[in-house]
Amino acid sequence: MASNNCIVKARPEKGGLVFESRDIPEPGFGEILIKNRAAAICGTDLHIYNWDAWSQGRVKLPCILGHEFGGEVVDVGPGVRHVKVGDFVTGEGHLTCGFCRNCRLGDGHVCEDWKGIGYDTDGCFREYMTHPEMNTVINDPDLDPALAAIQDPLGNAIHTVFAADCVATNVAVFGLGPVGVLAVAVLKAIGAAQIFAVGRRNQLRIDLARELGAHHAIGSAETDPVEYIMDHTSGKGVDVVLEISGNPRAVQDGLHSLRMGGDLVLIGTSNEPSTIDLAKDVVFRSIHIHGVTGRRLWHTWDKMKGLLASGSLQVEPVITHRFPFSDYEKGFQLMNTGNCGKVVLTF
Amino acid sequence: MASNNCIVKARPEKGGLVFESRDIPEPGFGEILIKNRAAAICGTDLHIYNWDAWSQGRVKLPCILGHEFGGEVVDVGPGVRHVKVGDFVTGEGHLTCGFCRNCRLGDGHVCEDWKGIGYDTDGCFREYMTHPEMNTVINDPDLDPALAAIQDPLGNAIHTVFAADCVATNVAVFGLGPVGVLAVAVLKAIGAAQIFAVGRRNQLRIDLARELGAHHAIGSAETDPVEYIMDHTSGKGVDVVLEISGNPRAVQDGLHSLRMGGDLVLIGTSNEPSTIDLAKDVVFRSIHIHGVTGRRLWHTWDKMKGLLASGSLQVEPVITHRFPFSDYEKGFQLMNTGNCGKVVLTF
Amino acid sequence: MASNNCIVKARPEKGGLVFESRDIPEPGFGEILIKNRAAAICGTDLHIYNWDAWSQGRVKLPCILGHEFGGEVVDVGPGVRHVKVGDFVTGEGHLTCGFCRNCRLGDGHVCEDWKGIGYDTDGCFREYMTHPEMNTVINDPDLDPALAAIQDPLGNAIHTVFAADCVATNVAVFGLGPVGVLAVAVLKAIGAAQIFAVGRRNQLRIDLARELGAHHAIGSAETDPVEYIMDHTSGKGVDVVLEISGNPRAVQDGLHSLRMGGDLVLIGTSNEPSTIDLAKDVVFRSIHIHGVTGRRLWHTWDKMKGLLASGSLQVEPVITHRFPFSDYEKGFQLMNTGNCGKVVLTF
Amino acid sequence: MASNNCIVKARPEKGGLVFESRDIPEPGFGEILIKNRAAAICGTDLHIYNWDAWSQGRVKLPCILGHEFGGEVVDVGPGVRHVKVGDFVTGEGHLTCGFCRNCRLGDGHVCEDWKGIGYDTDGCFREYMTHPEMNTVINDPDLDPALAAIQDPLGNAIHTVFAADCVATNVAVFGLGPVGVLAVAVLKAIGAAQIFAVGRRNQLRIDLARELGAHHAIGSAETDPVEYIMDHTSGKGVDVVLEISGNPRAVQDGLHSLRMGGDLVLIGTSNEPSTIDLAKDVVFRSIHIHGVTGRRLWHTWDKMKGLLASGSLQVEPVITHRFPFSDYEKGFQLMNTGNCGKVVLTF
Repeated sequence: MASNNCIVKARPEKGGLVFESRDIPEPGFGEILIKNRAAAICGTDLHIYNWDAWSQGRVKLPCILGHEFGGEVVDVGPGVRHVKVGDFVTGEGHLTCGFCRNCRLGDGHVCEDWKGIGYDTDGCFREYMTHPEMNTVINDPDLDPALAAIQDPLGNAIHTVFAADCVATNVAVFGLGPVGVLAVAVLKAIGAAQIFAVGRRNQLRIDLARELGAHHAIGSAETDPVEYIMDHTSGKGVDVVLEISGNPRAVQDGLHSLRMGGDLVLIGTSNEPSTIDLAKDVVFRSIHIHGVTGRRLWHTWDKMKGLLASGSLQVEPVITHRFPFSDYEKGFQLMNTGNCGKVVLTF
Repeated sequence: MASNNCIVKARPEKGGLVFESRDIPEPGFGEILIKNRAAAICGTDLHIYNWDAWSQGRVKLPCILGHEFGGEVVDVGPGVRHVKVGDFVTGEGHLTCGFCRNCRLGDGHVCEDWKGIGYDTDGCFREYMTHPEMNTVINDPDLDPALAAIQDPLGNAIHTVFAADCVATNVAVFGLGPVGVLAVAVLKAIGAAQIFAVGRRNQLRIDLARELGAHHAIGSAETDPVEYIMDHTSGKGVDVVLEISGNPRAVQDGLHSLRMGGDLVLIGTSNEPSTIDLAKDVVFRSIHIHGVTGRRLWHTWDKMKGLLASGSLQVEPVITHRFPFSDYEKGFQLMNTGNCGKVVLTF
Repeated sequence: MASNNCIVKARPEKGGLVFESRDIPEPGFGEILIKNRAAAICGTDLHIYNWDAWSQGRVKLPCILGHEFGGEVVDVGPGVRHVKVGDFVTGEGHLTCGFCRNCRLGDGHVCEDWKGIGYDTDGCFREYMTHPEMNTVINDPDLDPALAAIQDPLGNAIHTVFAADCVATNVAVFGLGPVGVLAVAVLKAIGAAQIFAVGRRNQLRIDLARELGAHHAIGSAETDPVEYIMDHTSGKGVDVVLEISGNPRAVQDGLHSLRMGGDLVLIGTSNEPSTIDLAKDVVFRSIHIHGVTGRRLWHTWDKMKGLLASGSLQVEPVITHRFPFSDYEKGFQLMNTGNCGKVVLTF
Repeated sequence: MASNNCIVKARPEKGGLVFESRDIPEPGFGEILIKNRAAAICGTDLHIYNWDAWSQGRVKLPCILGHEFGGEVVDVGPGVRHVKVGDFVTGEGHLTCGFCRNCRLGDGHVCEDWKGIGYDTDGCFREYMTHPEMNTVINDPDLDPALAAIQDPLGNAIHTVFAADCVATNVAVFGLGPVGVLAVAVLKAIGAAQIFAVGRRNQLRIDLARELGAHHAIGSAETDPVEYIMDHTSGKGVDVVLEISGNPRAVQDGLHSLRMGGDLVLIGTSNEPSTIDLAKDVVFRSIHIHGVTGRRLWHTWDKMKGLLASGSLQVEPVITHRFPFSDYEKGFQLMNTGNCGKVVLTF
């Protein structure tokens, strides 16, 4: 029998991963068996690696990590009707019920009963995994497996960009982690008028944002973003702010960078509440604020497929590092330094 | 020459109104001359009457108050092309430029250069007034002048209701002042599934909300609104919350009464900032927050005309008191007690 | 063992139904077993009863007819997670795949692989039937079973009404069969400004439309609808036309009754093509035409649940006749006369 | 006094233009005086040049032609508040009332009382012209005047593209005249997934479409477009068809190239009605048809400004010829051959 190597969070401590072989699972009713070709490390995996407060409250050990992947279908269980052996697929990591009101209205990202693979159940950091057919997307067979794997964060970026009208409008992105720079690439692909990319100090990521199409890329440690944006928009502000850093200061700056009637899209999260002058900054200025989590099922995936097909979306430069699957420790340690874009493990 | 009696805020103090006659103005280019038939007292007028901090900072005395009115066109200036002598009209009290980007995109309520009659310029509490044709709406000639006059706050209510999808959905209204109870009436007219009206202690207004169609009308002084709403929505919360009180506690309660993916519409304002747990209450729950001010020009007015024509919108009971124009002091003093809905002055 | 009486189209001829008992089926994976309490006869059933050209090309005999039903869950198969024994349910009659792009984007009504119960597979005119859980809606337990059963055509009406913006706008309904009069009721519930109901000669249905809330109800055999509508809209036309008759003449009249920029929603179908002056009647007038079939899954069902909860939607009068299940022949023959609204069979 | 050379359609015959000098007009209330720098010849001008049936019925001679222009403001009349001497402007050629319901709802392209310059009133083919400030757009001062002038047809293309959701979707453009190739450029700028450009035989324009970003560019004289599109969309069809040719055959091909639930946008016009099988091709397939005329005021202009600012919109290659203003005859004759994109007259 083939081996099935897995990355398991085994011990409740920083690091605490073990590389172990398990049996290849059998696909159940409506499930497929996937042989992975690439998987990417998410910030969520890093939280669990570092065993932060959130992880300690949510994850039961042992748990196979990972939820960003692309692989080949090697077997299908009973009741599988659409996906076939040989298909190159990616799975949505939020397992949704498909029946609750949110799912039925296209808002599966806030399914009343979702579970996340890699923290609520075993994840994708293994050679062979099962996954429900209904949570699967069939990729173009020519898609680079590493790109297939990062469709999860790319989907976050797309969900964020499409939460407001960014086509032919002025947009500022606050926060230039992987999702932030991917958002810049998406904005470029759909014809945003002026893209302002606002990082903090990380020059690698500020430069990456510029390379991916930002008309302006600045670091807030050196340049006041509100002042800069106002100077470049005739004092009126941008139409849309995408807040991807979670920094409470960035939320304030974002609100103050908006034109009257503009949209603030929030995907970044902080451990501390924000204080907002709702009357002055939201009501009288007719501002709209949108909370974004996960990917809209399946509207986001559909837009993603279209953008990948267009040839206008440039995401390759975001994948700065690729390691063999068994070298995962290098990947986690690199991510802890911040000197990278997306880090992909290849099988 | 006919007299032209006016209510003028003359002195920088609580009250400080004088009733004086002025010349009838001449309509300029693009202006019409209106002989008023009814005018209503807004909360804004009351702020100026009470000479609060906002008024002291904004209003230059002397100033004719008022911005809610309906009257007959008795003369037109040069360049007027659409409105005719004899038309029964109401004017939008926000004078907008019609040229800036917001105006051109249908968002005149946040015109980059708007002025409000009754505080930035002389208002409608006078027998004869001029008004720009382009800021005028022609009413059905059979419309009750008092109803015509309260189209301004009714428009606030309509703008608020139409800021989210309230048709056939569950909606909670926090704050049962005139705009709040008007919002209940609008929700009833467009088929909201379940309307929860949440006041504080004012039983007159809680009862008014029930009369206007609320399926549930409660006072938060006695009943915890979050608990009540959760109990009546299978623990899921409402689709939309309309926050019309400005109370920071109500903003919190509103957020906690929403289903995942729901909309919080804010029109109420407070003098103090709110503290919001954006990660927990907005991002992870995919909530949308909409700041609302004024009326959308001209979408709100168009919906208002349609709802008034439908026969389904019941607003008469909101007008609890009518006084002759010269008895305005009674109106202001009554409004300071809170024991009323809308108070209308008739000419 | 309990009997399981069924209405089977057995012979390829007008009528050709037999009433026979079959075994109670066993629910498979993901399926539920329903004991029906009411079922309604659709125009599609009548086409099959009359064995018209469409039926001859589509339906393989023998086939149990019927797709409008409401019943109680009496058993569930393996893998059923959300529906429970004792739930009062209705099923969507279009069996959709849930995986194709249309399904995933909320357009299951045009699923790439749908099948209709009652003509592509055995239908609901039987005491006990199985149905996929994922195609099931849980009703309010207090809902009249007859009302539960007519949610299918009510859903057609809601899909039609919600295909354009009918809230507070002027709307004309052409065609007053069951779906047409249900559309009038829905328009009334959501605050359409002026509802024009246009039948042909059937006075029972014209009167029913007026009873359900139409501001104007006319017969085109006596009154020219375009002229009438123009006379009552200042010569501008209505915002929306819902064409539910399929009559090519009504399509023309509908186009000519619209204001510039208006919407024509088509759900009625004809066997013959229509000739349309696209330049004059569509392009230069900026008209939008929307083809509507089935119910949007699941947006339509969600709006339906909300409207039923509101208390504003009056549909009882549309159910003009109820017969015991075994008296189905009376129902079909009555429907062939046209002297009825919806005809319901009760168990 | 400066001369004011004008191109005047003087005689009711093919050609029949005279080049004559007139007085420089005085700007009236709310008007500006523009000194033109570039003007482009529209297909409508060509119709009038050729004196076809439409022209004979609509245009009163003598008439100064032209409605596509860009120029400098050299004087302003009384009441002008936003545009200043020295501004580089373009005017919307549809003079709209700004007061009717359509104007107020953002649909000024179907204003109830619009007039077109260059056929209903004197146009822009003159050195100096007056224009209402409210119908004026202020350009970026660095914009090429020729590009400024073709914002009218570029706006048609943008209105067409934005009439459906073309971002990240598959779109076919039927008809590769100037508006058609501009639509291709716009689709490319906003990230359409796959762009199919369908001309007839004109290889220059098919090549231009490919240069501007079409993924597929074919001539229907040689390649069956429906078959081609189905072959390249897994047999499902495109999401959106933009019909810009007016050819009735192209309307049929467009309908048959659409996926179920797709959108057909019509801006091309024909002199003959089309025969459409509404049941089969529109209702059962849930197709949406949108008539498009002119530019949406002012949403289209706003998107245009944003796309021009983005740097992603490539329109220069569409301007294939530039002639001095007095060489206009060459321009008209060239346009009659079809061997060109846009033809611009420079001052």
